[in-house]
Amino acid sequence: MSIDYKRELEQAARTMILIHNPATLIRMIVRMIVRKVKLRHAAILLFDKKRNSYVLTISRGERGLRIPAGFARVDSDSALISLFTQYAGKAESLKKSAMVCEDIDKMLWKNTLIRNEDKEQELLTKVSNEMRIFESVACIPTYFQNHLLGILLLGEKISTEKFTQEELDFFAALASDVSMAISNAQLFQELQDELKANKDLFLRTTIALAAAIEAKDIYTRGHTERVTKLSLVIAQKLTNSRIYTLPENFLENLHIGSLLHDIGKIGIPETILNKPGKLTEEEFAVIREHTLKGAAILQPIKEMEECLAAVKYHHERYDGNGYPEGLVGEKIPLIAAIISVADAFDAMIIDRPYRKARSRVEAIEEIKRCSGSQFNPVVANCLLELAREGRV
Amino acid sequence: MSIDYKRELEQAARTMILIHNPATLIRMIVRMIVRKVKLRHAAILLFDKKRNSYVLTISRGERGLRIPAGFARVDSDSALISLFTQYAGKAESLKKSAMVCEDIDKMLWKNTLIRNEDKEQELLTKVSNEMRIFESVACIPTYFQNHLLGILLLGEKISTEKFTQEELDFFAALASDVSMAISNAQLFQELQDELKANKDLFLRTTIALAAAIEAKDIYTRGHTERVTKLSLVIAQKLTNSRIYTLPENFLENLHIGSLLHDIGKIGIPETILNKPGKLTEEEFAVIREHTLKGAAILQPIKEMEECLAAVKYHHERYDGNGYPEGLVGEKIPLIAAIISVADAFDAMIIDRPYRKARSRVEAIEEIKRCSGSQFNPVVANCLLELAREGRV
Repeated sequence: MSIDYKRELEQAARTMILIHNPATLIRMIVRMIVRKVKLRHAAILLFDKKRNSYVLTISRGERGLRIPAGFARVDSDSALISLFTQYAGKAESLKKSAMVCEDIDKMLWKNTLIRNEDKEQELLTKVSNEMRIFESVACIPTYFQNHLLGILLLGEKISTEKFTQEELDFFAALASDVSMAISNAQLFQELQDELKANKDLFLRTTIALAAAIEAKDIYTRGHTERVTKLSLVIAQKLTNSRIYTLPENFLENLHIGSLLHDIGKIGIPETILNKPGKLTEEEFAVIREHTLKGAAILQPIKEMEECLAAVKYHHERYDGNGYPEGLVGEKIPLIAAIISVADAFDAMIIDRPYRKARSRVEAIEEIKRCSGSQFNPVVANCLLELAREGRV
Repeated sequence: MSIDYKRELEQAARTMILIHNPATLIRMIVRMIVRKVKLRHAAILLFDKKRNSYVLTISRGERGLRIPAGFARVDSDSALISLFTQYAGKAESLKKSAMVCEDIDKMLWKNTLIRNEDKEQELLTKVSNEMRIFESVACIPTYFQNHLLGILLLGEKISTEKFTQEELDFFAALASDVSMAISNAQLFQELQDELKANKDLFLRTTIALAAAIEAKDIYTRGHTERVTKLSLVIAQKLTNSRIYTLPENFLENLHIGSLLHDIGKIGIPETILNKPGKLTEEEFAVIREHTLKGAAILQPIKEMEECLAAVKYHHERYDGNGYPEGLVGEKIPLIAAIISVADAFDAMIIDRPYRKARSRVEAIEEIKRCSGSQFNPVVANCLLELAREGRV
């Protein structure tokens, strides 16, 4: 039988390096082998670093499902793995590139005749049994840097013909490519997981610190969390409506920015923050400083530029009568304009020492009334729509 | 000429997937081609996403250095790149797999005779010139997903023999492997850079927030930064002395932990923190709460377990007379024992409202005197040694 599928499989093996999802990759390659080579079944046993054992990552073909689930994981000291790992440290030319069931049976039979060493006999018998459990007639190991990466398990051909040596050599090369692509994908996955975990840790630490800072102000418990949630919902709606094209990382920055929007309060005396009565003009002036104090804290961090804008300008007004700079209209960064609406809305619905909380309906009315004067009308309108949809 | 190097190069191409340093990878492969195929020179032009142009990543061989440095970058609209990108979107069978200088010259000559379209003539003339600038007699493009990834530039063979079609086909396959491995390595590098940037951002944000919290206490400016530095120096010395085997991430946790060790002060009224006179017993009791308040802030963050221990226990004493839990000896986590020594040392050498700063010598003497009572003796001893070495 000529191996006419060779070119196609080689071509596929070439491109798989850049597929960084291990599961997709394995599924793709096993399916391809089964179809092109016309096998009843094929599977891959792959090393799992975390558990130091080999896992049957996938199994395809008409007989694929017959593999007992309990055998889905193979320990490193199993016969099949032991047989191949003993070659792992050896020179390329000494490594076993494939093991065919039939050959093993022949060796076993020969060994019986010449009464060979018991240990080898025992190992081969076990290997033969394990291969039968996996319904494979040939096993092809793949190594990387003296380590057994995995084993490609091939089922019988539908034509019931035997594998030729040329075919087995070809599969050895292919298995090597596949295993390396999979290892590569796994490393990629690990790195991506670590990056995700890191971003997540950063976010949660920011949440914890924001909560601690907020705790200084006894009147605003939970305020930061609610403002953050509402800001993100508004931004999401703006994105969907396509009125603004939000830059990359905008939502991430808005998340951090709204968590930290009142961070400057850390520099405001508690006596003023927590004063039960009405504040004097001087005390208000001190409170207003929290925008600039917050900006100063983030100043040294270049990547926080957008968050800094959120902290600094969330008390600006669309008509230019806000603070600290009296910016007008679209000059106010969108990130700050969003937080401004969310912040004002949430401030209205909580009790303050000098006034009682308003109802949600009243607060929405107030946002509507101040759209275009205090608030960016597009952002304010976004909140009004959310209210109509019952999402605020 | 038989291509006996084929097997070796293919073997090498297989393993390079797992080399994740693009520079190493490129150097390795170009050097190998030059040596095995016995070329005067070889180079790779590789797509640089950031600048949307192609860079001569490396050039090797006896003529390698003759390439003018000014041509190290080739714009996407250059003739050589244009020639190959026009094939990028086409089916595999229609793609040009290699371009040999000699063939181009033949085509140019033929075009002159039959007065072919000017544009093609112009492009080919330019390609021919660019190839000569790179001293290459053959160019092999590599594509991935309809995008031109790079071009392998081959110099003349030392034997001056021409490349056969079989050789060119082989190089096309090899170039594809190489480019993909390089793209993969670049993606890896990008991910690793992002991870590093992220960790760094986390650290700098923590520093900024710690500084903001510290600013509440007017007597301790710069204290956190100094304690953090000293703690890290002590830990480094402990590692070198091999007395303790520090767990993975210990230094990272110590860094964050010492930056945040006084984070609980955020919950202590400024009137007490900044009281100019001596504190009453009740006021001291409030100050002592900063350890538990700090721990409570970090409580929700699972990954901060070690840092939390630093925050919570940095006022414990080796003899068990510390707070908040009165832990004794080795029960006090090492991370807290280190910060305890660094914190006490730095507190002694700064002015306090109720006493003047001591000298460094006096502070060292005090640490020595309290070794084994207030301080973990191994850690205290470490500081004393650092002092003897003039590093404190």
